[in-house]
Amino acid sequence: MSQGNPAPRLRGVLAPVVTPFTPDLAPDARRFVRHCKWLLANGCAGLAVFGTNSEANSLSAEERMVLLEELVQAGVPAARLMPGTGCCALTDSVRLSAHAVALGCAGVLMLPPFYYKGVSDEGVYRAFAETIERVGDARLAVYLYHIPPVSQVPVSFAVIERLLDRYPGTVAGIKDSSGDWANTQALNERFGKRGFDVFAGSETFLLRNLRAGGAGCITAGANVNPAAIDRLYRTWQAPDADAQQQAIDAVRAALQKFPMIAALKATIAHHARDPEWRTVRPPLVELTPAEDAALAASLAALGFAMPGIAAD
Amino acid sequence: MSQGNPAPRLRGVLAPVVTPFTPDLAPDARRFVRHCKWLLANGCAGLAVFGTNSEANSLSAEERMVLLEELVQAGVPAARLMPGTGCCALTDSVRLSAHAVALGCAGVLMLPPFYYKGVSDEGVYRAFAETIERVGDARLAVYLYHIPPVSQVPVSFAVIERLLDRYPGTVAGIKDSSGDWANTQALNERFGKRGFDVFAGSETFLLRNLRAGGAGCITAGANVNPAAIDRLYRTWQAPDADAQQQAIDAVRAALQKFPMIAALKATIAHHARDPEWRTVRPPLVELTPAEDAALAASLAALGFAMPGIAAD
Repeated sequence: MSQGNPAPRLRGVLAPVVTPFTPDLAPDARRFVRHCKWLLANGCAGLAVFGTNSEANSLSAEERMVLLEELVQAGVPAARLMPGTGCCALTDSVRLSAHAVALGCAGVLMLPPFYYKGVSDEGVYRAFAETIERVGDARLAVYLYHIPPVSQVPVSFAVIERLLDRYPGTVAGIKDSSGDWANTQALNERFGKRGFDVFAGSETFLLRNLRAGGAGCITAGANVNPAAIDRLYRTWQAPDADAQQQAIDAVRAALQKFPMIAALKATIAHHARDPEWRTVRPPLVELTPAEDAALAASLAALGFAMPGIAAD
Repeated sequence: MSQGNPAPRLRGVLAPVVTPFTPDLAPDARRFVRHCKWLLANGCAGLAVFGTNSEANSLSAEERMVLLEELVQAGVPAARLMPGTGCCALTDSVRLSAHAVALGCAGVLMLPPFYYKGVSDEGVYRAFAETIERVGDARLAVYLYHIPPVSQVPVSFAVIERLLDRYPGTVAGIKDSSGDWANTQALNERFGKRGFDVFAGSETFLLRNLRAGGAGCITAGANVNPAAIDRLYRTWQAPDADAQQQAIDAVRAALQKFPMIAALKATIAHHARDPEWRTVRPPLVELTPAEDAALAASLAALGFAMPGIAAD
């Protein structure tokens, strides 16, 4: 429960869940539901479905809404969900955000519009504000999504300040995927006391973020290594916290030698013995068999496992 | 008529038509139709609706399809239309492209998926190829859209070569908005003889592109200055061609002192005496009154006019 907010806030480790596709590149709801349930059973506090690592922007708005409904109908609690809803088009962002609120999702993770580059803070502010106004629902909790290496459009401190001033009950936090610890630290210092939950965008910053008062992390690695990351979240004040962080970092480093999304899917495919999991949508490309084998070997050398993962 | 191709090809000056919005930010079909008709009556050979300058990526797929249908129903010939259909999501690109083909459009202008950065040529090739395969219609003519300053994802020569080898009747040309004349020249030299029509992405390269064997230009400036640009297209071998280019460049330079889309809309608003034209969707922002006045003054100093433009 965050102070001053009537709704329970998600804290801890969230996975931007990878989206499985059938061989003809259709979203695969069955595998998606199964992986979401495995993640919740293995340490994830919540699921940031439709994030960057979910290939969300490779899905149409309709495909996202259908998958979200499938999840909820399959028994995944909406209170554990933080779907990505920020699109280039205002009307898409409004539609997806309103849909998520109607389903009872804990929050939404919102990219700024990312086609036009070099846009002003005024323009980014208007994009978020107009979306919030149009959804027009007190249940809406917006987590801003700052990922300049991909979006190329940052969410500046000036924009956050204006949004928090205008929509204090709605603007709930941020995922900081800048890769710049100084930025994450400054977010905690400047906005943490206002009930603004700062999630690191990678597990490599988890311990530092918790020590700085942050809320947890929303991270690619949680797709395959949720239990270890969650253990660090729960025991970050224990004597072995730094050692835990190092072990988590070693797994992340092994994954990061390859394109991340393809590497996550290859890892799930390998451990679940389910080759279809390797499928990605263009413009992404799956790992080659040689890359696949090299990744599996380097994870095995670290003693990495995914207990309970299965094809069915 | 381009050699070896059964369908008439668009050549000359095309406008990436700016999309008008009502005060509540809804697409304004009435003003859109009127501006499209004015452009065709004043020198545009075709209309590249739903381009970068159209704020197309600020529209949902549905909004684009409705506007395109309104245009055709209002009597704008589909044979003069080259709508933008390249989205981040494969399924959106397929849907928009198939819709454009079904309406009889001359071609489609296709961005590569632009959310993920640093993607491979293999991935970009697959995105285009999969879209062409799924549309699966011999009437489809694809113009590739190379605009790395905005999309951040280029269309490389290697990708063009592969697409032309595999889909010679479908891959019809390119809009080169790299801003790099050497790239446009090299496109003409390498692919021009294969029935691949190279359009410059700015009128500032029109004369050079025509001298290099190119097909014309698809350019922001054609939204407000189509007659002068078209005159250069038709008389590029006349003695005054360089002087014509200089006069066109002066208008472009005046516009480019401001954010281009807002500047185009302000210019239409000014000359049509129709202030609603100033409206843009977030993340864009309209010009300030001072910017507006400065732009109008600098265009007036050049003797710039938009004959026949009107509010109704």
